[in-house]
Amino acid sequence: MPPPAGGTDADHARELDRQDELARFRDAFVVDDPSLIYLDGNSLGRLPQATVTRLRRLVEVEWGARLIRSWGEGWITAPHRLGAKIARLLGVAGDEVVVTDSTSVNLFKLVMAALGARPGRTTVVTDDLNFPSDLYILQGALRLMGPEYRLVVVCSADGVTGPEEELVGVIDEGTALVALSHTAFKSGFVYDMAAVSALAHQAGALVLWDVSHSVGAMPLRLGAADVDLAVGCTYKYLNAGPGAPAFLYVRRDLQHQLLSPIWGWLGQKAPFDFALDYVPAPGLQRFLAGTPPVLALAAIEPGVDLVLEAGLERIRAKSVRQTEYLIGLWEAMLEPLGFTLRSPREARRRGSHVSLGHPEGLRIDRALIEELGVLSDFRVPDNIRLGLAPLYTSYVEIHAAVMRLRRAVVERLYEKYPTEPPAVT
Amino acid sequence: MPPPAGGTDADHARELDRQDELARFRDAFVVDDPSLIYLDGNSLGRLPQATVTRLRRLVEVEWGARLIRSWGEGWITAPHRLGAKIARLLGVAGDEVVVTDSTSVNLFKLVMAALGARPGRTTVVTDDLNFPSDLYILQGALRLMGPEYRLVVVCSADGVTGPEEELVGVIDEGTALVALSHTAFKSGFVYDMAAVSALAHQAGALVLWDVSHSVGAMPLRLGAADVDLAVGCTYKYLNAGPGAPAFLYVRRDLQHQLLSPIWGWLGQKAPFDFALDYVPAPGLQRFLAGTPPVLALAAIEPGVDLVLEAGLERIRAKSVRQTEYLIGLWEAMLEPLGFTLRSPREARRRGSHVSLGHPEGLRIDRALIEELGVLSDFRVPDNIRLGLAPLYTSYVEIHAAVMRLRRAVVERLYEKYPTEPPAVT
Repeated sequence: MPPPAGGTDADHARELDRQDELARFRDAFVVDDPSLIYLDGNSLGRLPQATVTRLRRLVEVEWGARLIRSWGEGWITAPHRLGAKIARLLGVAGDEVVVTDSTSVNLFKLVMAALGARPGRTTVVTDDLNFPSDLYILQGALRLMGPEYRLVVVCSADGVTGPEEELVGVIDEGTALVALSHTAFKSGFVYDMAAVSALAHQAGALVLWDVSHSVGAMPLRLGAADVDLAVGCTYKYLNAGPGAPAFLYVRRDLQHQLLSPIWGWLGQKAPFDFALDYVPAPGLQRFLAGTPPVLALAAIEPGVDLVLEAGLERIRAKSVRQTEYLIGLWEAMLEPLGFTLRSPREARRRGSHVSLGHPEGLRIDRALIEELGVLSDFRVPDNIRLGLAPLYTSYVEIHAAVMRLRRAVVERLYEKYPTEPPAVT
Repeated sequence: MPPPAGGTDADHARELDRQDELARFRDAFVVDDPSLIYLDGNSLGRLPQATVTRLRRLVEVEWGARLIRSWGEGWITAPHRLGAKIARLLGVAGDEVVVTDSTSVNLFKLVMAALGARPGRTTVVTDDLNFPSDLYILQGALRLMGPEYRLVVVCSADGVTGPEEELVGVIDEGTALVALSHTAFKSGFVYDMAAVSALAHQAGALVLWDVSHSVGAMPLRLGAADVDLAVGCTYKYLNAGPGAPAFLYVRRDLQHQLLSPIWGWLGQKAPFDFALDYVPAPGLQRFLAGTPPVLALAAIEPGVDLVLEAGLERIRAKSVRQTEYLIGLWEAMLEPLGFTLRSPREARRRGSHVSLGHPEGLRIDRALIEELGVLSDFRVPDNIRLGLAPLYTSYVEIHAAVMRLRRAVVERLYEKYPTEPPAVT
């Protein structure tokens, strides 16, 4: 790959920002300190301005003044209403997505439901690029199902690329479920969702995608790819706030076949009848469990609205341009300093974050955060993860981050930091 | 019971408010419309003033400005820090309670963990006064465990009183778990927690209490009662906001024996190592699953702080005085109009809400809400539930509510309302 057309200087970055049709969306977010370069939107998205207003209204008017009446004025339907909006980001119907619980809890519900719907099939296929929490949930679910159940973890050859070819030989008539992250949390590798889903279906297995690192950063077409199940997170590229509730998707024709393992009252056919025996609601509602966390739900909508307004095609186009630009700068200025690219070179196989490896990655990341005004994050063993959020990341920021990565190494700024990992990143 | 000493007039109610040592706590809450009589604090507590400030800081400073750094500045530890505060309300140690997920999801986790810890025992004992969601969760968990497992639902003779004596003949060496609501959601009946827990233990069973309708309204002594497991809700008498995350308690010496069925990354021994295999955290942390919902968590603390400041003994004393006062007024003024008392007469057996039955209960409740300025709630078939929250409910409000209940019947105001239940109450 040649250095970025237009060169590696800051002027060119400024020119790219001037040409950026999404640049104005940055003003829709709270940017408290414009000098801070925030490259962690893939972990916790920035705060939309509209969320501040929405939450004040929710707290002071809906809770404070309307009190219990608000349950009938939008609260109880919020999981479905927000789900219908997120469905547009996934390319599925509005009644196929609901917002509830955490990604982990939703994954648990869908995995148990899927295993229950494929009796006699005793393996789940995944890969070692999957988010560890997903692997843990799978392990726990299989343990509950019994000793004959097992997890098949297909390994990536290079730690970057998903083992898409290798799945062919592994998915078979014993496979109940193929469960993968669409975009890998560490390398940013993106699976061919339609191809892998078809592979699972050919073997009679169900397929479940965790789209946490994809949703809001690229168009998704779960409907066209005939996907059975999906879960995802709202606090990354959807900017819904720390630990915001997650969503789950179940293809409509599967909804009545699958049963959640967690029989909460809001998944009951008629929750306010207070009958003593559980009867699952007919559709997706059966995957709700307890009372929805209204404060956290309310914070989801403004961020989703911004993504819908900007449009996923435009967001993806900018994301690709920005990751290409970053990789061009890496090649010209960072590779000579020992940084390696730990993300796919091919744009269609790459999400919206780029990982750079370096033997001193941990300490370089500390220097970025502590003294160089760049918030990136670090993933073991030596990955610096740079998340580009097209709604608010500028080319000037990408350029400056690369300059500061250079400085951290050239001036050996990292040497003063401890070699043990920080408590939380 | 004689009519309230001092009589049934409004002057006496005003005098009781003047004597009330907790009266000043009402000012700690947002009371948008002082003429509205809010008797639903047992369902959704009022908004503490301090919560408004806390949430603004959380959103605008911690999320908006500090961004991802806030995870290391209190967010990741919030489930434990808040758990330790709630532990003081339960009479247990700080490391025995954690705040996470919903009451339903927590109940599922603990029930599955308990059944796993009592292999060979195949029944769970509960009663028909338990909150239906709890019954549903139990039914779902038992279904997962296998066809030999079953739920034994002991029935209340009168729909008001918990079948405490009847449990003696039912809990036996086949019982894995006794799971009950400490305070019944409909009648407000309160179990003798220590006696029933001892009964379970004599049979070698574990005991789990849902304290959702107790916590914050009365002192609890789960430690002294040797309780194994508990779950509870924060949005009722703890005033944490709609659908706020719930808590779970596991007695310390059981923590390492029990395993959550939901193996999320925050229950992993070292979540930020991103290892591929789940190893449960040594203590209570293993019952965490996904990333905590920080916005919703933050709203919990101000309400809990108010309860701690007021003191549970004083809160309970006022709660008993207020429910006695209400029952006295019922006897003098409502019983002659066909209202029946559907809560225990004996104060030590009664929580902080009082249920009144009436053949026209549904429509009377609608009249209260729609035109008489009283927010109460309704539970099938014919119960009007009046929740008294000692931190902000006044005697004058209780008196006025009774007068309006009278008016609804005497003036037949209810007759204009439909006989079908409202969508959500």
